[in-house]
Amino acid sequence: MRQRPDRGEVATYIPELARVDPQAFGLVVIDADGSVAAGGDSDVAFSIQSISKVFTLTLALGMVGDRLWRRVGREPSGSPFNSIVQLERERGIPRNPFINAGAIAVTDVILSGHQPREALGEILRFMQFVADDPSIAIDERVAASEQRTGFRNSALANYMKSFGVIENPVDFTLGVYFHHCAIAMTCRQLAKAGRFLAHSGRNPATGHFVVQPERARRINAVMLTCGHYDGSGEFAYRVGLPGKSGVGGGILAIAPGKASIAVWSPGLDEAGNSHLGRIALEALTKRMGWSIFGV
Amino acid sequence: MRQRPDRGEVATYIPELARVDPQAFGLVVIDADGSVAAGGDSDVAFSIQSISKVFTLTLALGMVGDRLWRRVGREPSGSPFNSIVQLERERGIPRNPFINAGAIAVTDVILSGHQPREALGEILRFMQFVADDPSIAIDERVAASEQRTGFRNSALANYMKSFGVIENPVDFTLGVYFHHCAIAMTCRQLAKAGRFLAHSGRNPATGHFVVQPERARRINAVMLTCGHYDGSGEFAYRVGLPGKSGVGGGILAIAPGKASIAVWSPGLDEAGNSHLGRIALEALTKRMGWSIFGV
Amino acid sequence: MRQRPDRGEVATYIPELARVDPQAFGLVVIDADGSVAAGGDSDVAFSIQSISKVFTLTLALGMVGDRLWRRVGREPSGSPFNSIVQLERERGIPRNPFINAGAIAVTDVILSGHQPREALGEILRFMQFVADDPSIAIDERVAASEQRTGFRNSALANYMKSFGVIENPVDFTLGVYFHHCAIAMTCRQLAKAGRFLAHSGRNPATGHFVVQPERARRINAVMLTCGHYDGSGEFAYRVGLPGKSGVGGGILAIAPGKASIAVWSPGLDEAGNSHLGRIALEALTKRMGWSIFGV
Amino acid sequence: MRQRPDRGEVATYIPELARVDPQAFGLVVIDADGSVAAGGDSDVAFSIQSISKVFTLTLALGMVGDRLWRRVGREPSGSPFNSIVQLERERGIPRNPFINAGAIAVTDVILSGHQPREALGEILRFMQFVADDPSIAIDERVAASEQRTGFRNSALANYMKSFGVIENPVDFTLGVYFHHCAIAMTCRQLAKAGRFLAHSGRNPATGHFVVQPERARRINAVMLTCGHYDGSGEFAYRVGLPGKSGVGGGILAIAPGKASIAVWSPGLDEAGNSHLGRIALEALTKRMGWSIFGV
Repeated sequence: MRQRPDRGEVATYIPELARVDPQAFGLVVIDADGSVAAGGDSDVAFSIQSISKVFTLTLALGMVGDRLWRRVGREPSGSPFNSIVQLERERGIPRNPFINAGAIAVTDVILSGHQPREALGEILRFMQFVADDPSIAIDERVAASEQRTGFRNSALANYMKSFGVIENPVDFTLGVYFHHCAIAMTCRQLAKAGRFLAHSGRNPATGHFVVQPERARRINAVMLTCGHYDGSGEFAYRVGLPGKSGVGGGILAIAPGKASIAVWSPGLDEAGNSHLGRIALEALTKRMGWSIFGV
Repeated sequence: MRQRPDRGEVATYIPELARVDPQAFGLVVIDADGSVAAGGDSDVAFSIQSISKVFTLTLALGMVGDRLWRRVGREPSGSPFNSIVQLERERGIPRNPFINAGAIAVTDVILSGHQPREALGEILRFMQFVADDPSIAIDERVAASEQRTGFRNSALANYMKSFGVIENPVDFTLGVYFHHCAIAMTCRQLAKAGRFLAHSGRNPATGHFVVQPERARRINAVMLTCGHYDGSGEFAYRVGLPGKSGVGGGILAIAPGKASIAVWSPGLDEAGNSHLGRIALEALTKRMGWSIFGV
Repeated sequence: MRQRPDRGEVATYIPELARVDPQAFGLVVIDADGSVAAGGDSDVAFSIQSISKVFTLTLALGMVGDRLWRRVGREPSGSPFNSIVQLERERGIPRNPFINAGAIAVTDVILSGHQPREALGEILRFMQFVADDPSIAIDERVAASEQRTGFRNSALANYMKSFGVIENPVDFTLGVYFHHCAIAMTCRQLAKAGRFLAHSGRNPATGHFVVQPERARRINAVMLTCGHYDGSGEFAYRVGLPGKSGVGGGILAIAPGKASIAVWSPGLDEAGNSHLGRIALEALTKRMGWSIFGV
Repeated sequence: MRQRPDRGEVATYIPELARVDPQAFGLVVIDADGSVAAGGDSDVAFSIQSISKVFTLTLALGMVGDRLWRRVGREPSGSPFNSIVQLERERGIPRNPFINAGAIAVTDVILSGHQPREALGEILRFMQFVADDPSIAIDERVAASEQRTGFRNSALANYMKSFGVIENPVDFTLGVYFHHCAIAMTCRQLAKAGRFLAHSGRNPATGHFVVQPERARRINAVMLTCGHYDGSGEFAYRVGLPGKSGVGGGILAIAPGKASIAVWSPGLDEAGNSHLGRIALEALTKRMGWSIFGV
């Protein structure tokens, strides 16, 4: 990783991600009325990486409902995002849908016998739908870069396959996974895409019901307990909002009933979450009194 | 454990706890106005066990502030309440103040060179103060029962001592720990004691400021991510409130700004949390729209 | 696994192996003078599986010498043959060359930039050379069966690749690995192949020096401490000889200075080693006074 | 630990052990005829520490026979001498009698309802008997030093107690354990004490049968696979003899049928075994052709 003392370090394990400007910073807040506050690089697209897991979880729950939880748990993992130890102990069932193994299992559910291209199309269209923006696309260079270097994820997928938790050919599932992690979005697009989680499952801008209110609450709950890998407790303690980070430096945070927030700053802390992004969200939540844990 | 198919199993590893009536059930809700809704065995005292950890955490933070976090983390553990594996990996620093090892470390901070009797008196008086009820007492038989059989906790304490995380004599720290876990309270008393967490650090009944608003939020955050051991994700997903359980079958849950809730049913689920208690809280939260994750 | 109460269970995780006759039993002992004692199915070929790891270790040491130990350790693992947990703790370096991960790393050293077919040819020729029998061949159906189902090994290889411990394309290394495990040999051939280890690195039958005496001793030492996965202590305790087992039910055991022994019985014990094979070796060693731990 | 670049580091975790002269070195070899070769500080007493575990294992096997193996395993641990992780996974049963947990369990078997003083007397008399030297004694300062600082061992003992693997009061068992580890012996005494293991269970000097031949072989086997903690594979690979090390810097090594060897040099390597001691044994074994793995 390149050293960024005050901003954390930019992820370099996916070569393509290392090219990003470490000084970039963007923030967009959309409140219940649809008012948008945007600052910095709010219209620069970045690789959303693991933030895509919020949307694949939503999509998979829509497809198979609570049967999804036979393939993945919903407990915090107490270990880094790419740990394989827990899988051995728990016979191939990942702890939650937001660690890599869990997201791969969720992707496998979405794939479900279809061709990778179809499944990927479905995920992308779902993202365009919730964000109400058909221009959202996959950064193929990032996807290719991950595919060339994603040996750890390949290990996780093969390991789950050995327990029967992955049902499709490993390469198919991984192909879809690498591609949806490589979706590029701006903070503005991301904040729009998160609105249904802030407003009981309905996007106020489009009027579309994406999920039932209970499901929106539950996805928020999983984000709160598992959304920042082994820094989830820290994020809850400091920010007090459900959120999901990606190694591209983005974070989507939800203030239920109040706002959808997207922040982007590429430097990461030790747990792999955006360093400045978390600090910005902590300051914002405090100023606005948006913590879900009390005013 | 004795089999209670529909209610979970009563904890028997502390012999004295096994004597409890498995049919017991109590529930008390105190809302922002101080209105009390009580049902069932709401005035029967039970052993609060690990629920005491919420109050020792609050007390220790009041004594040493954020320096407490040098001795204990605040991340979910991803393992059972009495696991020792994590301690070896992380050199004696417990993951959070709500697993046994963490609560023992917090107790050691409170003890801090004093005599066990003094430290215990301080904890008990603090509990009486927040609950505004001087009649709250320790069940000496339960404390003695734990002291005779608490080898696992003794292992945890000695292990942390070997890393210097425990500073007082191990027997002193454990003595205080076993006794504060043996505090007996009714649902009514417990719900009263939790009000400061629901109302920005201030108990509306007494007007006492127990902690600053930010500290109340943060304690709630730790409860949400770590309050139910390896069932914390499940509790957040189903109930959607910060809460802390004890193996005596009690749960204290906080609806920030709205209510303090205590429930008691001795049968436990696999993760060691009250089975019916959780179900009751899930139904109540849903009915009242109190989930912190959205309406 | 198919139940064989008195004989252990035949491995079924490689479908092709499950077809073997569970009643089969063969034993061949070749002493220092070259006298051969053979019994049972001593001329029936079986899949040597992990016994091939003794020969790939020997070959790799011949190619790169002690530099091999930068890529693999030589300590017992304290865990099953296909565990991945240890790899995470030790950053991709397998504990020893006889667990699957270690043998895959050794195979990668042999491959070393060549085409899989060449590397495999080299391994097969080496086996034919030490056994002095050019008829030894690979069972392609077994190799194909492993290649279709070896997800766990694929996970191990990809995991090591993520740490840079595997240098060739994962599929190349695994292809060679699956094929050398699928070498089919009879007890007679296997006992002949082991003679250089019993006689200071030289095969008395051919007069060929395969390795230096010190290297033969050291390979025997690794067989003793690591040759039976998590049953290595048990094998040393009961049999008292260096040995290497395979899930095909074969065991190669070495009585230094005295004899090379091959036994085959497909039923496995819990640690994955031939049940009757171990019992036969225990009786034989006791009768002959061959234990390396004293008469 | 104090730095001794060329000799390893002297153990300091038991304060009393840190006082030893790091330059000390002693070596005694007693061959089958009783010829003694002695060099260096061969008559300076040192703390035998874990080497005592060989003799408590022998004593306990004499008392309860193979029933001992219900309380302790005999597989290498794949982890450091004081690891507690394995105990959680295997429900309180230590992997082998030579890691600390295992030796504590063996001590508990010897104690078996007696007073600590009696059990300790029995162990000491057994040591005097096998060494044929009634002057062997316990260094009380070392024992007291361990008792004051042995929190890790106390954690192990309490942890096993929670699973019922320790039957006596924890303090009793630990008291006996700390004291037998504090036995002080010279290399000469230690080499004499090991002779029964080199000669089929009989001490040629006294003619006493200490154990049956098979038991001597089996104890040697456990020493080979487990005698040097997580450096057991390395010791077998380099030295090729059954051996047991102690953090006092001593090693007892057995060349079956040939010699009993004791070496002492206080500097330890990373795995906690005497650094120069191992090197001296490697050179000696090579010179004499004593490796059990071939000439």
